[in-house]
Amino acid sequence: MSALPHTADAPLVVRSDREGVTTLTLNRPAQFNALSEAMLNALITEIDAIALDPTVRVVVLAGEGKAFCAGHDLKEMRANHNLAFQQALFRLCSKFMLKLTELPQPVIARIHGIATAAGCQLVSMCDLAVAADVARFAVSGINVGLFCATPSVGLSRNLGRKEAFEMLVTGDFIDAAEAQRRGLVNRVVPLEQLDEEIARLAAAICAKSPLAIRMGKQMFYKQLEMGMEAAYQLAGETMACNMMADDAAEGIDAFIAKRKPEWSGR
Amino acid sequence: MSALPHTADAPLVVRSDREGVTTLTLNRPAQFNALSEAMLNALITEIDAIALDPTVRVVVLAGEGKAFCAGHDLKEMRANHNLAFQQALFRLCSKFMLKLTELPQPVIARIHGIATAAGCQLVSMCDLAVAADVARFAVSGINVGLFCATPSVGLSRNLGRKEAFEMLVTGDFIDAAEAQRRGLVNRVVPLEQLDEEIARLAAAICAKSPLAIRMGKQMFYKQLEMGMEAAYQLAGETMACNMMADDAAEGIDAFIAKRKPEWSGR
Amino acid sequence: MSALPHTADAPLVVRSDREGVTTLTLNRPAQFNALSEAMLNALITEIDAIALDPTVRVVVLAGEGKAFCAGHDLKEMRANHNLAFQQALFRLCSKFMLKLTELPQPVIARIHGIATAAGCQLVSMCDLAVAADVARFAVSGINVGLFCATPSVGLSRNLGRKEAFEMLVTGDFIDAAEAQRRGLVNRVVPLEQLDEEIARLAAAICAKSPLAIRMGKQMFYKQLEMGMEAAYQLAGETMACNMMADDAAEGIDAFIAKRKPEWSGR
Repeated sequence: MSALPHTADAPLVVRSDREGVTTLTLNRPAQFNALSEAMLNALITEIDAIALDPTVRVVVLAGEGKAFCAGHDLKEMRANHNLAFQQALFRLCSKFMLKLTELPQPVIARIHGIATAAGCQLVSMCDLAVAADVARFAVSGINVGLFCATPSVGLSRNLGRKEAFEMLVTGDFIDAAEAQRRGLVNRVVPLEQLDEEIARLAAAICAKSPLAIRMGKQMFYKQLEMGMEAAYQLAGETMACNMMADDAAEGIDAFIAKRKPEWSGR
Repeated sequence: MSALPHTADAPLVVRSDREGVTTLTLNRPAQFNALSEAMLNALITEIDAIALDPTVRVVVLAGEGKAFCAGHDLKEMRANHNLAFQQALFRLCSKFMLKLTELPQPVIARIHGIATAAGCQLVSMCDLAVAADVARFAVSGINVGLFCATPSVGLSRNLGRKEAFEMLVTGDFIDAAEAQRRGLVNRVVPLEQLDEEIARLAAAICAKSPLAIRMGKQMFYKQLEMGMEAAYQLAGETMACNMMADDAAEGIDAFIAKRKPEWSGR
Repeated sequence: MSALPHTADAPLVVRSDREGVTTLTLNRPAQFNALSEAMLNALITEIDAIALDPTVRVVVLAGEGKAFCAGHDLKEMRANHNLAFQQALFRLCSKFMLKLTELPQPVIARIHGIATAAGCQLVSMCDLAVAADVARFAVSGINVGLFCATPSVGLSRNLGRKEAFEMLVTGDFIDAAEAQRRGLVNRVVPLEQLDEEIARLAAAICAKSPLAIRMGKQMFYKQLEMGMEAAYQLAGETMACNMMADDAAEGIDAFIAKRKPEWSGR
């Protein structure tokens, strides 16, 4: 990550665009990128804009400074000790997390340091995750008397239930290799190769039909929550529709003719 | 696999029976066993017959030639560029895939080469899978602009969701060892030991009570889609019924008497 | 385990309490701790008492003698060859198994020897499991003509579906390392370190807020059976409530002040 300004006026989230890949960088390094109410709102604003932006093919979620993300802003939470604030905060956070799976474009988490509590949740809710070998993961709320309930939603849909439960009640860290073995991250590389590896993964996705990726991602999370028969109905309809699109015709014709396809995105 | 005739009149699916084990071999080697409409209908005809055949204890699904199965027949799909054909095709394919889990007998996929797109789906939908170490797996539709939606149903019920998502948006291959690590296949052996390993697994199942296997398989997929309490109700009823069958009485009595049980299949 | 009396009057389940950790030991060593009707009732009595006992922070489930638990009592089942008995037995067993996840306190299985059939189910239904390297696991009912239907409920929610299916139709054993790789147990240690490792895990949980652990465990299993949006609603409400409790205030204040928290359990 390039050095970013960290003054009081510094944006909470920094967006940069390059060849279809948009990087959103959490920019509260002194607070280990804690997800304050303002940070969550800033993230939602960015994600909502990206959802409507056809030039964005892949989103990378990164963190400035030492940590990827250390979870919620405990000081802010203690300073607003009333139920209404807490309920609104977790509703806001859940809304943001669900927006990551609703977003048409795939989202890759870039984990270069620690990802704890809601920071670990963020990793679990991204479609894909690439970690540096030095990254570490924990749902550590239990250490301060606060069970990581919302993080458990994503965590228990990435890991085995006993693995998730152990992390939730002990607050213990796992390293990047273990996170990959358990299904929390897709790839682990040395820190100095992290950006290169993410660029490679993002480029692979950018080379595909944007239409097919969008239709596929939307269908993927819906069918996951269905019984198998209903899932097949949805998937079959989606695939028949996809097949009638220009990109599938072009893709198959190019494949048969052994040439490179040119996507129109239709 | 023995050499099979590949003339125009060659059957699309070749059935062979031996000691309770029925092997269905996809027989379009020149087309990498692509699942054309005719192939899917031939498979359904075979599966429907097996469902009613008490002499069949285990089904092995294999592929003739170089590939296990390379998915749908893209040429046929392009030659019928209308929504009705595509919808009917995916409904037919989904119907066949669901029949594999509805079939009373366990189905073992025998993967000796590549299994891509709907071929990879076929592996995911079999109850069990044994792969040669040279086998490779991908859901590669995305490379031709066609997201592997129906394959994602089985894939995401075998693998972790991030692992499945990565394969779906990159189209990348994984090897047999990785497929085993992720839960897509049960066993991996050198190619020259593939038939021996499958024979061993099939024989282990053939040695069990056909009644218990049938009751168990039917219950297994139903309970998977239920909440835990409903799952226990179904499983408890199934087990009480199974316990009242002759085979359970014989099996337990034989166990207590330290002799070999003789199954009546009742 | 200390030597326990095994006379006719010996209790079926032995409870011992030490520093917040309650150990329940199945005490039918000559019958490999088979889950007879009386044993299940004894376990339910103990679990119901523990649920109301605020001095208990963690439960350890252990087995006396050579085996952890070899499943149901086949002799008793054969001696009561009528459907009503079998239905009542499996309802009773399912009720007990579900009580393990409903219990406010975390339950750790201590597996020092074989865990077969309903014994393997018991491992799958505990929140956490620590095994000795010599432990072995199987759902072996199929060997006596009785498909392990109720065990499959827990097993298929711990393991991949192909892994679970293979164990159910073959009855084959897996060793402790494989059980860990598949998600059935959390930790594997040499037998002589088993009690030490469990004490370490239990102590880690005892050091946490009992309120947060209780709220968290209850929410965890509920959200697992929900769609993601409903899961987030429940988890967000739970976390907001947890945040308003004294223990969270104390925990966060202690964290910010870099001192050790003192839990009131409120």
